[in-house]
Amino acid sequence: MENTIKGATQVISINQLLEHWQGHRRLTRKVIAIFPEDELFTYSIGGMRPFADMVMELLGIAEPGLREIVTGQTAQLNEHFDHGNSKAKLLESWDSATQQLKELWAQMEGTDFQKQIVSFGQFPGTVQSALFYFMDNEIHHRGQGYVYLRSLGIEPPMFYDRS
Amino acid sequence: MENTIKGATQVISINQLLEHWQGHRRLTRKVIAIFPEDELFTYSIGGMRPFADMVMELLGIAEPGLREIVTGQTAQLNEHFDHGNSKAKLLESWDSATQQLKELWAQMEGTDFQKQIVSFGQFPGTVQSALFYFMDNEIHHRGQGYVYLRSLGIEPPMFYDRS
Repeated sequence: MENTIKGATQVISINQLLEHWQGHRRLTRKVIAIFPEDELFTYSIGGMRPFADMVMELLGIAEPGLREIVTGQTAQLNEHFDHGNSKAKLLESWDSATQQLKELWAQMEGTDFQKQIVSFGQFPGTVQSALFYFMDNEIHHRGQGYVYLRSLGIEPPMFYDRS
Repeated sequence: MENTIKGATQVISINQLLEHWQGHRRLTRKVIAIFPEDELFTYSIGGMRPFADMVMELLGIAEPGLREIVTGQTAQLNEHFDHGNSKAKLLESWDSATQQLKELWAQMEGTDFQKQIVSFGQFPGTVQSALFYFMDNEIHHRGQGYVYLRSLGIEPPMFYDRS
């Protein structure tokens, strides 16, 4: 059983961790999709970034960060790309990263999640702490997107809906 | 080594998961502490709950939810208690729950994290999916608290500061 190591249960298995992440990514995608296109790139509260900028940060972390873990090649942190203020382009980048995560994850079998690494050449931790940081950071910023949506009079997707 | 099961590494060990959770709890505590006391109980954006109400939800989930996992006794979901609009009282409840989590966690050794459970008698999942849901929900609402703080002109604690 993939959920066990030599008969003892894992807290969370490698495959469960990917599914957990992808579930969060599906929810974040819904939040991007429900944003009015103008406000996605312009709307701000309290001097914070528009939600699209937060999404670019998430895009800059997830796939490059996992690729770095899988290949051992230091990744560059790049939180910007030319989206042309297009929601479709942002969603396309999101879906592309989701697919790449899936492909990269297929190489994670046998990975030592306790291995010390330095993400993006600057953030020391372990494979597991880096991955959880990537996910936690997505949840954090998505929660902020919820407030933006509510203040725009738009009901966000249910937090527990990971379909 | 606690990070291994019979020689193979865990994705995240039982002790690491508690430390991960407690790190998030330390950050959430900072967010509660930095809120102006009035606004903690009254300030709202887009018709959402004041941050204190979100904190009461988190208090209603974490310790009762873990106690249910440890004891097998169905917990009641109670997201309200008499805080008297006192930040000190909210922080006291937070610290009490943090301590109880630590004590309950000492009984988690040997727990089957893949066991099917029904949290609060209504949310089906596994021990691991329930625990991650509790943590993710905290990160989600805390992120919303960050927006409240920014819109009040207050700089929130750094997201990566779990000290």
